[in-house]
Amino acid sequence: MKDYIKHDEWNIIEEGFDPKLNRISESLFSIGNGRMGQRANFEEQYSGDTLQGSYVAGVYYPDKTRVGWWKNGYPEYFAKVINSANWIGIDVEIEGEVLDLARCNVKEFRRTLNMRKGYLLREFSVITPSGKEVKVSAQRFCSIVDDQAGAIRYAITPVNFGGEVSVTPYVDFDVANEDSNYGEKFWSEVTKSVQEKEGWIEAKTDKLDFHVAVGMNYSLEIGNDIIEAPAQSKEKNKYLASTSSVYVPQGEELVVKKYAAIISSENHPKDDLIEVCKSELSRITSKGFDIMLKEQQAAWELKWEESDIKIEGDVSAQQGIRFNIFQLNQTYTGEDERLNIGPKGFTGEKYGGSTYWDTEAYCLPFYLSTADQNVARNLLLYRYKQLDKAIENAEKLGFTQGAALYPMVTMNGEECHNEWEITFEEIHRNGAIAYAIFDYVNYTGDQRYVVDHGLEVLIAIARFWSQRVNFSQEKQKYVILGVTGPNEYENNVNNNWYTNLIASWCMEYAVDMVEYVKNTDEDQFAQLVQKISFDENKEVTHWQAIVKDMYYPVDEKTGVFLQQDGYLDKEQVLVKDLEPKHLPINQKWSWDRILRSCFIKQADVLQGIYFLEDRFDLETLRRNFEFYEPRTVHESSLSPCVHSIQAALLGQKEKSYEMYLRTARLDLDDYNNDTEDGCHITSMAGTWMSVVKGFGGMRVKDGQLYFNPFIPDQWNSYSFKIRFREWLLKIIVAKDKVEIENRSESPITIFLSDKPLELHPLKTAMVNGH
Amino acid sequence: MKDYIKHDEWNIIEEGFDPKLNRISESLFSIGNGRMGQRANFEEQYSGDTLQGSYVAGVYYPDKTRVGWWKNGYPEYFAKVINSANWIGIDVEIEGEVLDLARCNVKEFRRTLNMRKGYLLREFSVITPSGKEVKVSAQRFCSIVDDQAGAIRYAITPVNFGGEVSVTPYVDFDVANEDSNYGEKFWSEVTKSVQEKEGWIEAKTDKLDFHVAVGMNYSLEIGNDIIEAPAQSKEKNKYLASTSSVYVPQGEELVVKKYAAIISSENHPKDDLIEVCKSELSRITSKGFDIMLKEQQAAWELKWEESDIKIEGDVSAQQGIRFNIFQLNQTYTGEDERLNIGPKGFTGEKYGGSTYWDTEAYCLPFYLSTADQNVARNLLLYRYKQLDKAIENAEKLGFTQGAALYPMVTMNGEECHNEWEITFEEIHRNGAIAYAIFDYVNYTGDQRYVVDHGLEVLIAIARFWSQRVNFSQEKQKYVILGVTGPNEYENNVNNNWYTNLIASWCMEYAVDMVEYVKNTDEDQFAQLVQKISFDENKEVTHWQAIVKDMYYPVDEKTGVFLQQDGYLDKEQVLVKDLEPKHLPINQKWSWDRILRSCFIKQADVLQGIYFLEDRFDLETLRRNFEFYEPRTVHESSLSPCVHSIQAALLGQKEKSYEMYLRTARLDLDDYNNDTEDGCHITSMAGTWMSVVKGFGGMRVKDGQLYFNPFIPDQWNSYSFKIRFREWLLKIIVAKDKVEIENRSESPITIFLSDKPLELHPLKTAMVNGH
Repeated sequence: MKDYIKHDEWNIIEEGFDPKLNRISESLFSIGNGRMGQRANFEEQYSGDTLQGSYVAGVYYPDKTRVGWWKNGYPEYFAKVINSANWIGIDVEIEGEVLDLARCNVKEFRRTLNMRKGYLLREFSVITPSGKEVKVSAQRFCSIVDDQAGAIRYAITPVNFGGEVSVTPYVDFDVANEDSNYGEKFWSEVTKSVQEKEGWIEAKTDKLDFHVAVGMNYSLEIGNDIIEAPAQSKEKNKYLASTSSVYVPQGEELVVKKYAAIISSENHPKDDLIEVCKSELSRITSKGFDIMLKEQQAAWELKWEESDIKIEGDVSAQQGIRFNIFQLNQTYTGEDERLNIGPKGFTGEKYGGSTYWDTEAYCLPFYLSTADQNVARNLLLYRYKQLDKAIENAEKLGFTQGAALYPMVTMNGEECHNEWEITFEEIHRNGAIAYAIFDYVNYTGDQRYVVDHGLEVLIAIARFWSQRVNFSQEKQKYVILGVTGPNEYENNVNNNWYTNLIASWCMEYAVDMVEYVKNTDEDQFAQLVQKISFDENKEVTHWQAIVKDMYYPVDEKTGVFLQQDGYLDKEQVLVKDLEPKHLPINQKWSWDRILRSCFIKQADVLQGIYFLEDRFDLETLRRNFEFYEPRTVHESSLSPCVHSIQAALLGQKEKSYEMYLRTARLDLDDYNNDTEDGCHITSMAGTWMSVVKGFGGMRVKDGQLYFNPFIPDQWNSYSFKIRFREWLLKIIVAKDKVEIENRSESPITIFLSDKPLELHPLKTAMVNGH
Repeated sequence: MKDYIKHDEWNIIEEGFDPKLNRISESLFSIGNGRMGQRANFEEQYSGDTLQGSYVAGVYYPDKTRVGWWKNGYPEYFAKVINSANWIGIDVEIEGEVLDLARCNVKEFRRTLNMRKGYLLREFSVITPSGKEVKVSAQRFCSIVDDQAGAIRYAITPVNFGGEVSVTPYVDFDVANEDSNYGEKFWSEVTKSVQEKEGWIEAKTDKLDFHVAVGMNYSLEIGNDIIEAPAQSKEKNKYLASTSSVYVPQGEELVVKKYAAIISSENHPKDDLIEVCKSELSRITSKGFDIMLKEQQAAWELKWEESDIKIEGDVSAQQGIRFNIFQLNQTYTGEDERLNIGPKGFTGEKYGGSTYWDTEAYCLPFYLSTADQNVARNLLLYRYKQLDKAIENAEKLGFTQGAALYPMVTMNGEECHNEWEITFEEIHRNGAIAYAIFDYVNYTGDQRYVVDHGLEVLIAIARFWSQRVNFSQEKQKYVILGVTGPNEYENNVNNNWYTNLIASWCMEYAVDMVEYVKNTDEDQFAQLVQKISFDENKEVTHWQAIVKDMYYPVDEKTGVFLQQDGYLDKEQVLVKDLEPKHLPINQKWSWDRILRSCFIKQADVLQGIYFLEDRFDLETLRRNFEFYEPRTVHESSLSPCVHSIQAALLGQKEKSYEMYLRTARLDLDDYNNDTEDGCHITSMAGTWMSVVKGFGGMRVKDGQLYFNPFIPDQWNSYSFKIRFREWLLKIIVAKDKVEIENRSESPITIFLSDKPLELHPLKTAMVNGH
């Protein structure tokens, strides 16, 4: 837990330079545009501790698996989004002295991430070892308008002297991943060229042959005058640079404007990369930094228009929620169905930038409500396109006949994870893939998706479950043995209630959708039957039999659903009764102790009740919530949001707010001491859900929009915007009233606290009390 | 499964050279003397596939742990007995041509491991690329008389020419372990010196600072005449050599006698190593090869006198059992309580040469019956001396107050294993450590061991179990959650019947021994109470409460003990009904599929009934044996012996013999396709048990020796020798009679088929029919 970020509604601000916090700030102040991202590394040389990070979406490396003890079925590699060329670098020398904050006396230092306008600004002044005072202002952004471009304005002022300032903008592909399993570097140079103040370099990954070309150029200005200083180019393997030296009078500002074009073979033919790179570079250069920045600001203005949450009376909460929304929008724009959302986005290496079930369970609702429905649809298509790999994955584990097991961690659809209890056993993820289809269709009404893509996935998943269960002669029920539920503090358990529930639901939903597609588009259905050798009668009957006789562990005495067989054999202790020295248990306890304790990492039974809320009455929810929440240590950043939403539903406002607070500023306050690895991007969507589905009580049922809002006592008011089908609504919740503004041209009836409310086009409805 | 080893009663013989079999033969033809061991690598250069292996007991390296996903509590390193200096090397050039079997036409090739006499002989003749025919006879051994010495007689005959033969004996510390986690080498040179035909070199390990000095010298003879050829010495980093060239007339034999002294800092002060090395070298050299060999033969004669098993009518079985006894005796001599028995002995790198529960559960009975009781006592002392580390190990996992958890894999007492389901959960190993104390005392009658050492271990183990159980409110019983039983095809299960049983037994036995020691040696007991802060009343009462209310899963319908909670929820299939393509499941199935199947790797419930045989009647054994054996895939080499012994007890002769056969020639016939990694040393003790405790029905109860022998139909007769306290007995079982020879000077009454039988000193008793 740290508290060094200044509270501000629209900006993330660090004041003063503390090298020990540098990696954390590098994560927090990351910038990105969905196509690429960049940690807040310094432009100039820095010999202190830093995690260099520049990432290009979709460009990954299959790093050979590192494992202690091999298990059959493990994948050969772990795919990771790799550190790509450093394109921000500008080495600076002041009268022959290298500018390096680790070697200077830093007088002032201020980093600002302007979330409203989408740029990073770093201002500092230092005294160099020889006593020269220098002021620097460095501003940069990854453009969301020109999404293959980055631009930097780097301004240097000699404060107490006039002298020779030499700058060396460069591009460097000779970078490494700190998490490389065997210390290998991943890039090889293809070609490069540098002349005067411009250069381009193409490199390729040593495996999979991704190519990336990075071009750069720069200009020098003093007092708005372009300086035509000569440039000296320099080349090394995987590196190019250009140095210019200028005499800068005391008190004048030398401005370096550096432009970079980052062009990936994911988006252009390999043969064209250099040409595209050159023309893109020329295009943005002629546009110029100032215009690019203006366009950037306008584009972010639009994003905020659709997704902002405004909180009055709590600057810290306001900053927290905006930071989350900002990072989510920097990470994924939804334009490319080959991309997905890594748990750290573009802010660090951890988790390899790969796709987890986080996307379906936590991120999808955010994008459904704040972006065009194609964004969410692309997240679904990502999995649809990987169905073949999911079938192969299941085959490796002994499943047959088109059963699909989606991977726990993946880049291209192949499983990357190698921890048997997760890789092979945390199979509930398959349920989230199916649930996302339901969630999408429920929210958007786009039933056609099921016909065109969804059903094929649903059948493959139902096939998996139908093979994964077995009939217990002992129980005379279908059981699911040897699984890990969402609560990863239990491994290889039998009859995880959540897994049994979601498995059964998948089969039910598949049965319903078979029926729907058959009735809706007979031809399409016939084609599918043919394509996947679907034996409708036999398979559906089998699924129905399993659904009918699925076993669910329940405590007969209390009616609480049991997380798994034998859960009540554990010593029953509540988290509040643990001495603080034992927390977090994932750092303080050995793994076996965690496993045999009753403590829960994240919602498990409650996750099931959350997903299938309509199947359970409030009393059932209350009974289970009151049993499980006190046993939950919330040591996954994905945990609190579900509890926050459910506490809201139960009218437990304080609990709901408490849960919200656990992740609202998770990264800003470095709550878990791990922000240096990158930000918790996917859990940020959970925070958004806490506000909109928790406090706002937003739901969609049968195509109708519901709100059941309350306001935390700590706030004066809050508002959020959601897109729902053709409408854009703004909901403002104050202490004593709720206003809902219909920003669209057509009317809509919504339900507020279960009462219908007609919203006229471009009008605001106000309801007192709630 | 292979069948290239010639069947012979006393020799292991390979005829013809097949490079593909070379690694297997290198394992099989290994030689050792308890202090050191050597794979059957070639003396001369060999550019084909080989696993170089020379090991010095107790000299290990803490190789940095390699792990996919770190879990709290994992050790930082994996200790492995490392490849030590190559001391056998003799490079040979024939008229300038390197002798290398991979580059020659091999006309004849024969490797013989003479088990009776304890040496390895390799004879071959080749045609070199230039057409020269050369005959070689290479004989070597690790002396069990001079146990820091090895000797080689390497004889070269030019068959179709006379010419210059150049030989280069060398010592090379620049060796690597193939299983090095990060590809590092482990040795650094300390000092060396080589002059004429003699040299010595000292090296140390880069961690832990073990030092080993190896000295070598050699002589050359033709037709019994010493040849005083000049020698050219050569040095490289970690390497020394001496080359001599001699003209050898056609048909004459050039004999190189190479002596090596291998001196370890485990046995001598570091400062003295070179001096000890020189004097040892001088001592054995003056003794000479022929005398050393004679002494070796005599010493092996004595070993066989005590431990031989003779089988008439089945050469293959005879060879198999002698190979096992031979390897066990090469691996561990019991003179040094710091040493133990690695699963591969000195025959390969796998499992790091570390100590597993194999020692207590499988090897101890062999050494108890075939060697002085101090040998078994030293195995116990090994654990006693590591008690502090076992307590530290338990502390790391959150246990307190002197509770001890012995490691799964260890060299010096610290845990080395890093697989959570084993490291933290296969805790039944603690039971085997306690059981070994019982086993030892029961066999030897040495109750004093409990007073002096045993009780302290037993209390620490009882303390562990008493903290590891928890009281289930649900069951109103004590339960043990989250364990892996002996059947490692189940992980993280609850209430593994075996673990619950052995845990309870440990506490019972500790209670008994507390009582015994208190009554036997009040002072000693008081000292112990003080030393370990033993609160007798409170602790014993707690243990008794747990013993009384321990939970054991049982199938109420059939009375079968259940391997763990929920075992009957599994799909119940028998191994015989599996299609052969699925076997072995550990190679064919993914890990999750193995886990959720009912198939059993090795005796689990049956292991418990085996250890505590007297607590269960034959009907109980039969019921459980008939349930579990058909579900057991015996994919651990430690599995069949227990089943063989139990089948014998149940009168199922065929089944008993079938189980015996599964491991009797495991390595000789490369049954599991893994002998290239080394021989299965610890399971060899299991094979011995199958014969002596299975077929021979040997038991010790209340200080009395019992035999209940039968003879497999395939054999004419068999005999084995056992030491029992002051007696040495030879038991000969024929088709129609049993003879028992008392080779000692005092009488003893034993029980044959439960009838008392008086054995007179130095006399043989014969009983017809059995």
